[in-house]
Amino acid sequence: MPEPQITRTFDASSSPEHIRQAIRTAEFTSHTSGLAKGFVQCNLVILEQELAADFLLFCQRNPKPCPIIAMSDKPGNPIISDAGKDIDIRTDIPQYNIFRQGELRKQVTDIYDLWQDNFVSFLLGCSFSFEEALLDDGIDIRNISEGVNVPMYNTSIPCKSAGVFSGNMVVSMRPMKARDAIRAIQICSRFPNVHGAPVHFGDPAHIGIHAISKPDYGDMVTIKPDEVPVFWACGVTPQVAISNARPSISITHSPGSMLITDIRNSQLSIL
Amino acid sequence: MPEPQITRTFDASSSPEHIRQAIRTAEFTSHTSGLAKGFVQCNLVILEQELAADFLLFCQRNPKPCPIIAMSDKPGNPIISDAGKDIDIRTDIPQYNIFRQGELRKQVTDIYDLWQDNFVSFLLGCSFSFEEALLDDGIDIRNISEGVNVPMYNTSIPCKSAGVFSGNMVVSMRPMKARDAIRAIQICSRFPNVHGAPVHFGDPAHIGIHAISKPDYGDMVTIKPDEVPVFWACGVTPQVAISNARPSISITHSPGSMLITDIRNSQLSIL
Repeated sequence: MPEPQITRTFDASSSPEHIRQAIRTAEFTSHTSGLAKGFVQCNLVILEQELAADFLLFCQRNPKPCPIIAMSDKPGNPIISDAGKDIDIRTDIPQYNIFRQGELRKQVTDIYDLWQDNFVSFLLGCSFSFEEALLDDGIDIRNISEGVNVPMYNTSIPCKSAGVFSGNMVVSMRPMKARDAIRAIQICSRFPNVHGAPVHFGDPAHIGIHAISKPDYGDMVTIKPDEVPVFWACGVTPQVAISNARPSISITHSPGSMLITDIRNSQLSIL
Repeated sequence: MPEPQITRTFDASSSPEHIRQAIRTAEFTSHTSGLAKGFVQCNLVILEQELAADFLLFCQRNPKPCPIIAMSDKPGNPIISDAGKDIDIRTDIPQYNIFRQGELRKQVTDIYDLWQDNFVSFLLGCSFSFEEALLDDGIDIRNISEGVNVPMYNTSIPCKSAGVFSGNMVVSMRPMKARDAIRAIQICSRFPNVHGAPVHFGDPAHIGIHAISKPDYGDMVTIKPDEVPVFWACGVTPQVAISNARPSISITHSPGSMLITDIRNSQLSIL
């Protein structure tokens, strides 16, 4: 009779380093939402060096959808020391999306074999950080309470272009009572590195959204009669800009399977 | 032929002390909006000592509509040194409203003859300060651009009672595009002593306002199709609470004729 396999579980109280070790060995290959409460999780973008300067400028010009938390110190270095202890970007994310000419080709659990010495890695802030701050304040986050992905929409809000990178902003939507939305604007204003304050609330048509019940990404959530939709700049925006640029190769995390850093959410607060 | 009378004019560049001297001699008896840019203007409430403790508690429990900037250091002292140099509350306001049993009886330009040695004076923050901060950020304040009084409404939002003082919140309304409203929430959050962040936006019925085009006080302003009404707690709230309490005597400034202090608006910013 074989030894029973010991499956470790991870939760809000697990340490980032502990979870990353399990991700590195592909013991853990799933979504990271709710893990390691209090610590920043990041979106990943990897591009070849020839596109990195343009992409950095695109992020600098569009800080709400593309807030850079950390990046490679030099091309080809897979160690991102600014994000935590011993982070190897080739292995420490549960699942990667590999794109060729801007089109998704496959999903893998490490990118050891794909690594190039001209790769530049970007870690971008994600909504998990501000959702945690809102939950801690007692505000209902509908996509969490309904257990689905946040609804996301293409908009008519243009990003500022940089080189080959351009596109309209993608937004995520969370419905709230007006008084909670006012509080959410206050709380999120303290976190400019994780999308900051909302970009819009109320009539979706004002930002080019004509079917609120049909999100372009993610799942619809309930909007109650006394609530308004509140819209935040979303980390899908840079993915759309990269897709538009059609680079020969680009790599991102798979949606929901983020890099768990050693940076505390509270350390991102500017106030 | 008589000497031509020299009439001094006052404007945004006039110093608070300079204008107060003209107010003290009744040379200036008009509205103070737009004068002494950068300096805090205050609402005045004077009550007899027996009601002062309850009123102070009412303000403490309802800081958004009733933010106390300064008050008498002891009953009967008309000098409010915390608000500026040599301020005599009996003379330094352009026009006073005198109430008996909560009803307006007359308007006067000084209260020397009415002064009692048990009077306690309260100076409350006013919307002029945050309107200045919003204008400086390039946001249109409709009541200013249309040259009328801000529209104000009774609401169904109850204040927390204190002794004889109770009532619902009165709010002021300024219409804005959603993106300007988000910016206004950020800016006003820095000024809790002048009503702070808005208390509501969007559907007026949610806070018991059923005829947005018919304000209970002030004048209606244009709401454009791409704008939402944004509502702030208003300094008329304590006047309603005092009116409900029907004190034998109470004195306030006349609406729009405020005390111009030596405190800078920027000094009220908490961030």
